Amino acid sequence: MNIVLLSGGSGKRLWPLSNEVRSKQFVKIFRSKEKDYQSMVQRVYQQIKEVNPETRILVTTSKTQVSAIHHQLGSEVEVCVEPCRKDTFPAIVLATAYLHDVKHLSEEEVVVVCPIDPYVEKDYFEALEELAVEAKKGKANLVLMGIEPTYPSEKYGYIIPDNTEKISNVKEFREKPDLEKAKTYLLQGALWNGGVFAYKIGYVLKLAKEWIGFKEYNALYLNYKTLVPISFDYAVVEKEKKIQVMRFMGQWKDLGTWNTITEAMEEKLIGKAIVNQTCENVHIVNELDIPVLCMGLQNVIVSASPDGILVSDKEQSSYMKPYVEQIDQQVMFAEKSWGTYRVLDVEKESLTIKIILKSGEKMNYHSHSRRDEVWIIISGRGRTIIDGIEQTVCTGDVVTMQAGSRHMIIADTELRVIEVQMGKEISIYDKQKFA
Amino acid sequence: MNIVLLSGGSGKRLWPLSNEVRSKQFVKIFRSKEKDYQSMVQRVYQQIKEVNPETRILVTTSKTQVSAIHHQLGSEVEVCVEPCRKDTFPAIVLATAYLHDVKHLSEEEVVVVCPIDPYVEKDYFEALEELAVEAKKGKANLVLMGIEPTYPSEKYGYIIPDNTEKISNVKEFREKPDLEKAKTYLLQGALWNGGVFAYKIGYVLKLAKEWIGFKEYNALYLNYKTLVPISFDYAVVEKEKKIQVMRFMGQWKDLGTWNTITEAMEEKLIGKAIVNQTCENVHIVNELDIPVLCMGLQNVIVSASPDGILVSDKEQSSYMKPYVEQIDQQVMFAEKSWGTYRVLDVEKESLTIKIILKSGEKMNYHSHSRRDEVWIIISGRGRTIIDGIEQTVCTGDVVTMQAGSRHMIIADTELRVIEVQMGKEISIYDKQKFA
Repeated sequence: MNIVLLSGGSGKRLWPLSNEVRSKQFVKIFRSKEKDYQSMVQRVYQQIKEVNPETRILVTTSKTQVSAIHHQLGSEVEVCVEPCRKDTFPAIVLATAYLHDVKHLSEEEVVVVCPIDPYVEKDYFEALEELAVEAKKGKANLVLMGIEPTYPSEKYGYIIPDNTEKISNVKEFREKPDLEKAKTYLLQGALWNGGVFAYKIGYVLKLAKEWIGFKEYNALYLNYKTLVPISFDYAVVEKEKKIQVMRFMGQWKDLGTWNTITEAMEEKLIGKAIVNQTCENVHIVNELDIPVLCMGLQNVIVSASPDGILVSDKEQSSYMKPYVEQIDQQVMFAEKSWGTYRVLDVEKESLTIKIILKSGEKMNYHSHSRRDEVWIIISGRGRTIIDGIEQTVCTGDVVTMQAGSRHMIIADTELRVIEVQMGKEISIYDKQKFA
Repeated sequence: MNIVLLSGGSGKRLWPLSNEVRSKQFVKIFRSKEKDYQSMVQRVYQQIKEVNPETRILVTTSKTQVSAIHHQLGSEVEVCVEPCRKDTFPAIVLATAYLHDVKHLSEEEVVVVCPIDPYVEKDYFEALEELAVEAKKGKANLVLMGIEPTYPSEKYGYIIPDNTEKISNVKEFREKPDLEKAKTYLLQGALWNGGVFAYKIGYVLKLAKEWIGFKEYNALYLNYKTLVPISFDYAVVEKEKKIQVMRFMGQWKDLGTWNTITEAMEEKLIGKAIVNQTCENVHIVNELDIPVLCMGLQNVIVSASPDGILVSDKEQSSYMKPYVEQIDQQVMFAEKSWGTYRVLDVEKESLTIKIILKSGEKMNYHSHSRRDEVWIIISGRGRTIIDGIEQTVCTGDVVTMQAGSRHMIIADTELRVIEVQMGKEISIYDKQKFA
């Protein structure tokens, strides 16, 4: 089976754990089998591999998330890079063309598209296989997954099936309703639209040709910026006549807010945290090295990261987006394909950061025109190249680089480095890369 | 007038702003006249000077707080250093002997002893002057200040005066009572014991001779460790027959817990903080560089510092001591006489700190036997002495020091330095000082 995992998200709703470069799906809050913490991305990826190790997984995401995907899933995971954000129709077309043109899958092959962040169990991924089998039969152009609702939600679109069979034709779609309408939909046997659908590659390429004018991967990639942003649901699903829905009755959760995410957490406290006995229904997710102490709180989420500290009544946390948007905080922590960096100190004319470079990884060869830099190797072994000259470095070594000097560092073992940047104008844009 | 300010405190009750080296009296949360924030220590010191610039102030405190006192009050403030903590009787004896032997005050001079952290207005310090005048008359050996109670508190000891005059003899003392007893004391016209008393130097020196066996400053200092820890109230006040009390009816607050301290704060938010409109009676004191966002909270204090994060119902915050005692966190921030330091990163075999050295200040000349160090000057100008060789340094300079090398740094302007310590065993005890 071919699965395309859609990885999007703006990163505001799980602040301070999510930020511009780390969307909610990358936040590590679920216990893995190995007893450490994993993110939604890692959890879903592991579940798919467990259900069927042969599944071909393609992650489609924008440039800004590629590093995080590789950091969390390893460098071997296949990624289709969207040159910019353009909603799900262009993303799915690009991924489908990639599978056809770059990976040479035939037009008859079935693809299942699925968000990267559902909170589900294995039966969900078994159902995706059934979805693929059904799409392969070709009775319909699209086979959707319809999720059996557990309550009359106003948050989801609804699918009205023709009958109560496991697989049936779709009668109608309904936009997100109000509470009263949602109740009547439930009585009519409606299902939630979870954004999951299976189709044959040829079908989407034909749509691409019709709507966009071309269907070749290279052309799509090069002209991606000019494509009209539109969702796959709106552009395709709601218009298609030959469409089926498959009923899914297993567990499905959309962990979009702190309130819903804490319901899925197996432990109430992650990181250094203490709650006294008068606390009730308090969740703490603390990524900082310092302890959090909570006393006498009810129904509260506390989360601390290098970007900030949230203390919120759980229900209120759904309304945090406008407040987070007010916050003008530079990104203090990021996961990159090569490791992580964390800002330790910010001054007007200096910036001190900690870099952890994974064994075998390296930075790009680059220079800065407006700042000097110093590296102090606090652990590990590696090599630096400064203005073309390679030198080995290890714990305790200090490397100084004047503005303009070209430099890079290569990790032979995991390298931990304190980097001090100094200059009148320190900016992430002051960087020139060399091959 | 001579005032001895007692500066004690364990630092647990205002965690995370207070720690082992910063007791609650050093926490800056009150608006000063200059519109920046000041601590209880700074507020009291300024108030005394305003009421009478001629007042001689002696701060008595233990070694661990001397740096913080000098940092906050300036290097010219007079400090009597207690070699270790021994409760108030030994501390007051030592300070009194210091005034007599080192400062050559006569036995007839009056001293007023006062805690360093009452939250009061100017009339309080005017009352201290009256207390001194009364003590000078010599009608009693001790003149206490008795604070007119505002409610039947269980937290304070009570003084029962002979009559309702402003100054009267003391009939009796009562230990901290339960609520019912406190109510009856109030009906009897009892006053709170705020730990303030005036006496003539000769009186306390005589007591020292009787109780301890000697009264000379040098002998007291050298033998301080062997003295029995006992409070002045218990050792002296409650036993003295010739004792008066002066009634004080002005504002007096004992800001011992977060709950009481937030009542005295003029602003609800200090530092980077956002509260949404559903928050009620929420105070935030944030010393970190990252923002705190609070949503939907009632009657809560949030405080964040380099040592940790507290989120507590205000009433519950009175019970935090045992929880804070569980926390085994190294001191992450400290104010020293020469400036401040803050821990930025802790690894097994490295420690990265940021040092701010005030203009004109310097470190001790010292060495470490088990670690190398690197200094990166991120701003300012100064000089280093490394193994006897002096060199000027300025922004951008990097100085490396091998284990064993003797070093110091002198700030010609304010100096900001990133220091990276590296070694198998990094400890504050690995430090040898040289003259």
